[in-house]
Amino acid sequence: MIAGIIGATGYAGSELVRLLSGHPDVDALILSSVTFEGGRIEEVYPNFLGSISAPLAGPEAALEADVVFAALPHGVGEKWAAAALEKGVPFIDLSADFRFDGDEDTYAAWYGRRYAFPALREFSVYGLPELNRKRIREYAGKKKVIIGNPGCYPTGASLAAFPALSPRPDGKRQAAAGTVIVDSASGVTGGGREPSRSFHFPECSDALAPYKVGSHRHTPEIARNFAAMSQGSGVPSGGERSVIFTPHLAPMNRGILSTVYIPLDESWQVKAPGSSCRPPSPEVEKQAGRIRETYAEFYRDEPFVRVLPAGVPAATGRVRGSNFCDISVHLDAAGSTLIAVSAIDNMVKGAAGQAVQNMNVIFGFDEKAGLEAVPALF
Amino acid sequence: MIAGIIGATGYAGSELVRLLSGHPDVDALILSSVTFEGGRIEEVYPNFLGSISAPLAGPEAALEADVVFAALPHGVGEKWAAAALEKGVPFIDLSADFRFDGDEDTYAAWYGRRYAFPALREFSVYGLPELNRKRIREYAGKKKVIIGNPGCYPTGASLAAFPALSPRPDGKRQAAAGTVIVDSASGVTGGGREPSRSFHFPECSDALAPYKVGSHRHTPEIARNFAAMSQGSGVPSGGERSVIFTPHLAPMNRGILSTVYIPLDESWQVKAPGSSCRPPSPEVEKQAGRIRETYAEFYRDEPFVRVLPAGVPAATGRVRGSNFCDISVHLDAAGSTLIAVSAIDNMVKGAAGQAVQNMNVIFGFDEKAGLEAVPALF
Amino acid sequence: MIAGIIGATGYAGSELVRLLSGHPDVDALILSSVTFEGGRIEEVYPNFLGSISAPLAGPEAALEADVVFAALPHGVGEKWAAAALEKGVPFIDLSADFRFDGDEDTYAAWYGRRYAFPALREFSVYGLPELNRKRIREYAGKKKVIIGNPGCYPTGASLAAFPALSPRPDGKRQAAAGTVIVDSASGVTGGGREPSRSFHFPECSDALAPYKVGSHRHTPEIARNFAAMSQGSGVPSGGERSVIFTPHLAPMNRGILSTVYIPLDESWQVKAPGSSCRPPSPEVEKQAGRIRETYAEFYRDEPFVRVLPAGVPAATGRVRGSNFCDISVHLDAAGSTLIAVSAIDNMVKGAAGQAVQNMNVIFGFDEKAGLEAVPALF
Amino acid sequence: MIAGIIGATGYAGSELVRLLSGHPDVDALILSSVTFEGGRIEEVYPNFLGSISAPLAGPEAALEADVVFAALPHGVGEKWAAAALEKGVPFIDLSADFRFDGDEDTYAAWYGRRYAFPALREFSVYGLPELNRKRIREYAGKKKVIIGNPGCYPTGASLAAFPALSPRPDGKRQAAAGTVIVDSASGVTGGGREPSRSFHFPECSDALAPYKVGSHRHTPEIARNFAAMSQGSGVPSGGERSVIFTPHLAPMNRGILSTVYIPLDESWQVKAPGSSCRPPSPEVEKQAGRIRETYAEFYRDEPFVRVLPAGVPAATGRVRGSNFCDISVHLDAAGSTLIAVSAIDNMVKGAAGQAVQNMNVIFGFDEKAGLEAVPALF
Repeated sequence: MIAGIIGATGYAGSELVRLLSGHPDVDALILSSVTFEGGRIEEVYPNFLGSISAPLAGPEAALEADVVFAALPHGVGEKWAAAALEKGVPFIDLSADFRFDGDEDTYAAWYGRRYAFPALREFSVYGLPELNRKRIREYAGKKKVIIGNPGCYPTGASLAAFPALSPRPDGKRQAAAGTVIVDSASGVTGGGREPSRSFHFPECSDALAPYKVGSHRHTPEIARNFAAMSQGSGVPSGGERSVIFTPHLAPMNRGILSTVYIPLDESWQVKAPGSSCRPPSPEVEKQAGRIRETYAEFYRDEPFVRVLPAGVPAATGRVRGSNFCDISVHLDAAGSTLIAVSAIDNMVKGAAGQAVQNMNVIFGFDEKAGLEAVPALF
Repeated sequence: MIAGIIGATGYAGSELVRLLSGHPDVDALILSSVTFEGGRIEEVYPNFLGSISAPLAGPEAALEADVVFAALPHGVGEKWAAAALEKGVPFIDLSADFRFDGDEDTYAAWYGRRYAFPALREFSVYGLPELNRKRIREYAGKKKVIIGNPGCYPTGASLAAFPALSPRPDGKRQAAAGTVIVDSASGVTGGGREPSRSFHFPECSDALAPYKVGSHRHTPEIARNFAAMSQGSGVPSGGERSVIFTPHLAPMNRGILSTVYIPLDESWQVKAPGSSCRPPSPEVEKQAGRIRETYAEFYRDEPFVRVLPAGVPAATGRVRGSNFCDISVHLDAAGSTLIAVSAIDNMVKGAAGQAVQNMNVIFGFDEKAGLEAVPALF
Repeated sequence: MIAGIIGATGYAGSELVRLLSGHPDVDALILSSVTFEGGRIEEVYPNFLGSISAPLAGPEAALEADVVFAALPHGVGEKWAAAALEKGVPFIDLSADFRFDGDEDTYAAWYGRRYAFPALREFSVYGLPELNRKRIREYAGKKKVIIGNPGCYPTGASLAAFPALSPRPDGKRQAAAGTVIVDSASGVTGGGREPSRSFHFPECSDALAPYKVGSHRHTPEIARNFAAMSQGSGVPSGGERSVIFTPHLAPMNRGILSTVYIPLDESWQVKAPGSSCRPPSPEVEKQAGRIRETYAEFYRDEPFVRVLPAGVPAATGRVRGSNFCDISVHLDAAGSTLIAVSAIDNMVKGAAGQAVQNMNVIFGFDEKAGLEAVPALF
Repeated sequence: MIAGIIGATGYAGSELVRLLSGHPDVDALILSSVTFEGGRIEEVYPNFLGSISAPLAGPEAALEADVVFAALPHGVGEKWAAAALEKGVPFIDLSADFRFDGDEDTYAAWYGRRYAFPALREFSVYGLPELNRKRIREYAGKKKVIIGNPGCYPTGASLAAFPALSPRPDGKRQAAAGTVIVDSASGVTGGGREPSRSFHFPECSDALAPYKVGSHRHTPEIARNFAAMSQGSGVPSGGERSVIFTPHLAPMNRGILSTVYIPLDESWQVKAPGSSCRPPSPEVEKQAGRIRETYAEFYRDEPFVRVLPAGVPAATGRVRGSNFCDISVHLDAAGSTLIAVSAIDNMVKGAAGQAVQNMNVIFGFDEKAGLEAVPALF
C-alpha cells in the first residue's frame, strides 16, 4: 500500500513519515510540502538520512496514494479531503476541520471560519478508536471516509475520564457527577515547528506557565467527547458536558500529562468521608482500588491504554515515543473526587500515532501494526 | 546583627546563606552543618568562592547569633528551638515542626511523630506574613518567638486563594464556595540535595508526573490556611477547609506553579452562564476583571505579591530568584469557577526568602531588606 | 534464538531489553538482575508494561541462552564469561573487562584490578565492527567468543578519527599527524542508573562542566584504537597513539558529541595557509570537501556511519534512539587541522546497540537487524 | 548618575536594565527600544513588574544620560556613538563595531561592512579590563571614550589562556607554544531574543551540536586578544596568534564553557613525558599545581577571576548570574598540553556585566559596584 502525506515537513507530518516508514503494510510514501516542495525530506530532516529518502512534491501527488494523511494548519485542507473523497481514497486529517461533524457552529465559534465544503461531514467521523471504533469501521466500509483525528489534549483528557463517564453495564450509576476539571501540561513540540517567542528556548526552558486559561479551543472537543461517552452513543453529537480545561506549557519536548478531577456520584463515594487534614483512610484506598479495577475492565481490550497498578502514577516519561496512553487512578483524601491522570506522547497517541491507528482500523490491519515501539524511559 | 544557620549546606540552607550574605542588616553569619562540620561553606558550595567564606561549626555555635534559622529535616530541630528560646533568640524554622501550632494530632498524623517539646507551641507562630503579619509582630514583641516557616506548596496555594476566601469588607459574600482544587508542579530543587532515583537527571528530565496524589503532607497545611483566612482570624486554628491537592514534579530547577480552582459563590458568578462549547463571553471577561481588581485591592500593600494584569499568566520563569509571588486571575468559560494561578520561586518565597521576610518582620527591618533581587527571565 | 542479559535493570541493560525485544531473530529473553532478583522487568521499568514482561532471575539462568550479554560494572563479570565460554555460548560484555585483550597492565593501571581469568583473553575480541569486523567473525567462527564491547566515548572518538588515521590505499600519507585532541560531551544517562550528587537534577541541569580532565579511563581505549587503525592491523595491539581526551557532562539525557582535532600531515594541508583573522578561503572549503569525500569513501559500506553533507554539523539530536554515528568534517581557517565531529546515542551505538550489532556479526544476521529505528529529532 | 540604554529590550539590554537598576551609583535609567518604542520595559519584561518601571523612548533620549550603553545588532550603532562622543558622554557598545580598533579590514572581512564613522576609532578601546584596564582608564581620562565591549566567547577564551600567553615577569619563557584550540559551548540566550529554528525549544533541547565550525566571527577577536597578551602590549594590535575555535550550542539558558588546549613550551613541560595509556603521574599533577599557582598569581588582584583549587573543574552552574569567570587548570597525561577551562555567565561577564564593569572603570567606581551578586548553583 502507498501512503500519501500532505504537510510532511511539520512536526506531526515528520512523525507520520517516521512511523509509516516502519509500517509493515505500507510499501511506499508520497510526501508533500508546500514550504519545501522540490526538496527532499532528508534535507529538511537530516535525522532521516540513510533511513528515509523521498522527494517533496505538491499535494496533488499525495492524492495518488491509497490513503492520504493531512497534517496541515486548520482551515486549509478541506479541498484535499474533497479531492480524496472523489477518488475514493480514505483521508485522515490531523487538523480540527473534521472533528466537529455537523456542529459547524461550535467549530466556527472557536476556529473563526465556517466549513468550505460542509457536505463532506456526511463522510467524516471523529477518529478516537477508544470512543467509536465501531463507527469508524462502518464509515470505512462505505469506502468514502474522512477521519477527524483528535486533538492532543482531548485524547489524553478523554481517555482519563471515559470509564467514569460511561453508563454502567451493571446498571449502577455513572461515576462522574458535575463539572470535570482537566488540568494538562504539554511538551513544546505541541506548538509545532514554527519558531515563536513562546517556544524560544530561553523563554520556555526551566519554566512552567499556563496559557489560554479558560479559552483554549480544545475545550469544546473535550466537552463533546465527554458528552458522547456519557450518552453511551459512542458518537460526539450536539450534546456537551461541563468541562474546565487549563493547558500549561512544560519545559520538555514530548508528552502531555492530564490530571483530571472528576466529582463522584454519591454511589461511588466513600461512605465515611475523610478530612483534608488526615491522610487517606484504608477505606479510601480500597475504593480507589475498586475504581481502578473498573478502569482496567473498561479498557481490557484496548491495545494502547494501560491502566497502571496502584503506586505507579502516570508519567510522560514512560510513554515516550509510543502510542500508549497510561492512566493512573487516585482518590482525594475525602473519597469524593476521582483523580485520573493520563500520560500520552503528544506526537504519537496525540497526533501521528493515532492517525496511523485510524488507518489500521479503516483497512482492517492489526491495530498495533507500525505502532509497536516500546517506550524508552529516557 | 549576626545570623546563625543550622543546616546551612542543604539547598534551603545554602539559599539562606546566599540571601543573608547580601542583607543590609546582617553583619555576619555563623553556619552549622552536621554533615560537613569542620569544613567550610565555600568548599561545599564552590559557587560561593570569593563571595562568601565561613567555617561550618556545630549547631551550638549558631545559637550564639542574634537570630537562628534552622533548615533541617522534620523532627530534629525542636531541641535547638528550645535552646534558642531559652536564650531569647528568635528561631525561624523551615521544617514542618512548628507549622501546626497546638494541633499536634494533625502534625502527628502526617509526619509520624509527636512533639518532643510541646510547650514550645506557646511561642510559635505560623510565618506567612500575608496571612498573619500582625500576629508575628505580637509574638516578636514578647521576645520569645519561634516561626514555623510555611511549606513551599502551601505558600503558593494560599496566596492564590486568599482573596477569594477572605470575608468581604463590603459585606458581600466570600467568593469561594465548596472544595478548592490545588494543582501544583514544583521544580526539582524542592526535593532537596540528597540524591535519589526520583531526582536522578535521566529519570526526571524531559518528563512530567504527579506524585503522592491525594496524600501529600502539605495538604493539611493548605487546608488550615484556607480555613484561617475564611474565618478572618488571621491565624490557622483547628478549623479546616476541604481541599484537594495534587503535586507534580516538573523538569526544571526552581519554581512552583499552582493552578487553583475555586468554585464561586453564586453572588460572584456570571449571571448568564457560558457553555464549555463556546469561547468566554464578554461578560465572563468583565467579571474576571472585577475579581482581578478584588485581588489587586486585597494585596495592595503587600510588597511581594504581584497581581498580574489581564493577558499575563503567572509563570515560574518570571519570579526566578526573587521573593515575589505572581498571581494571575482567570474565569472558566461558564463563569462559575475562578482559576487563580500563582508562581513562586520555591527556594525563595517558598523557603529561604520567606524566612528572611519573617526575620525582617520580627526585627522591624524594611520587609524587603535583602530581598530586592529583580527576577531574571532566564 | 534466546538471548540472556545479566544486569538487565541498569540503563544499558534496559536498553538491551528494549532493543532485543524487537529483534527479528530473538525469540525470547532471559533476564537477570542482582538487585531485583525475584521481581519482574516491567515492575522495575513500568514503561515496558504491555510490551515486555519477564521475570528477573539470577545470572545462571541467563547462561542457558544462546547468547549472553553482560551489562555489569567493571570487574564482576569475568566468571560469567568463563561459564559462558565453557558452554560454548557467545558472551558480549559491556564492561571494560575485555576491551584490552592481553594488555593487562593498561587495564590494571586504570581499573585498579588485575584479570581474574587472564586466559579468557585468548577468546576475547574488541567489538568495534568498523575497526575489526573481520576479526570478530574469525573469533565467532571458533565458537568460543567473548566480545569486549567498546566504551561510549571511544566509539564516538574512534569513528570520527579513523579515516584520518587509516593508512591510505592510494599510497598517500596518512592524514593525521601528531597528537589528536578529543573534546567530548555526554548526556547524563552515561552515568548509569545509580543516583549521585553529580547526576542529581538540580546539580547538572542547565549547566555544563568537564570532569576527570586528563585522567578519564576511556583515554587508553581511545589511544589503542587510534594506534590499531594507524597500523592498519585492524586490531588494537600494544601500540598507542598520543591522545588528549576531555569529557564533559551536558544537561541532556542521551548522546555523545565528540569534537576531534586532528593535525594534518603536510600532504593534506592547504597550500596557502589561512589566517585566524580571516574567514576560511575557498581553497580551505575545497580541501574540506576532499577530506569529506575521503571519509565518505572510507565508510561507504558501513551500515551505521553517516558522513554528513557540507553544512550539516553532527548533532546528538539527529541520532537519538538509533545506532547511527553521524560524522561531520570541517577544517580550521588555516587549513591545517581537521575538525571531525561525531554524534552517537551513547545508550545505543555507545552501548546496547553496538552490543546487538556485535551479536548480528557473530551470528551472521543482517547487521542492521533489530537496529533499524529511525532517529527521532525530538 | 543617569544611565541610558539603547536596545534595552534585547536579552543583553534587559540584563543591563536588571544590573544597572541595582547599581549603587546609578540613580535613574533612560531606556530606548526601536521595536517597543512608546511602550514600557515592564510590559515587555513582566518579570520586572514591581521592581523596574520605565518608558521606552527613542535612542536620542538615551543620549541625555551620563553614560550610554548600546546593545544593538552589529552595524547600526555607530551614529549613536558619534552623537555620544560629541556630547562627551562615554559610550559602551556591546556589538562588534568597536572591538577591532583601527583594523577595519578584519572587521570588514567577518562582518560584511566597513566602518561608517572610521574616525571614531581614535576614541575607542577594547573593553576587557583584565587585558587593558590601564588603557581604558587613559581613554576615560580624555573624556571622550567608546568602549568596544568584548564578545562572549572571546571573554571566556581569553581569560582562560592569558596567563599562559603572558610574557613571564621572571624571565622564564611564555608557557604557550603553537596553535591554541578553543572548544566552547554556549547557552541559548547567546543567540538573542529573536526566535529562529536553531533556538526553537524542540530543536535544541536535549541535544548538543557545533555550529560555524572554523568560521565563527569571534575567531579573529580571540586571535587578536591572544596576540595582544603575547606581546605584552595590553592592547590588541594588528598582530594575531593562531587559534582554532569551535563553538557549540548546549541545551541550557546561560553560560559559556571554554575548554582551551594550550601546547606548552618545552620549559613548562613535564620532564618525563607520560603516556596516553597511563593515568597522570605524580609529576604531572605537581606541574599542574605549579601552573595553577601561576594562574592564581596572574589574577591575584582581579575582582572577577576565580582560579579554582585542584579538583574543582570550572562549571557554568557555579557562575550563574554573576560576573565571575571561573578557571580550572589541568594537564594532559603526557604533561605537554595545558588544558585551561573557563566558565562565565554569557549574559553577565560575557555581555552586560562586563559592560557595567567597564562603566565602573571609566568612572572610577568600585569595580565590583552593582556586580556583587553571589552565583546561585541552581
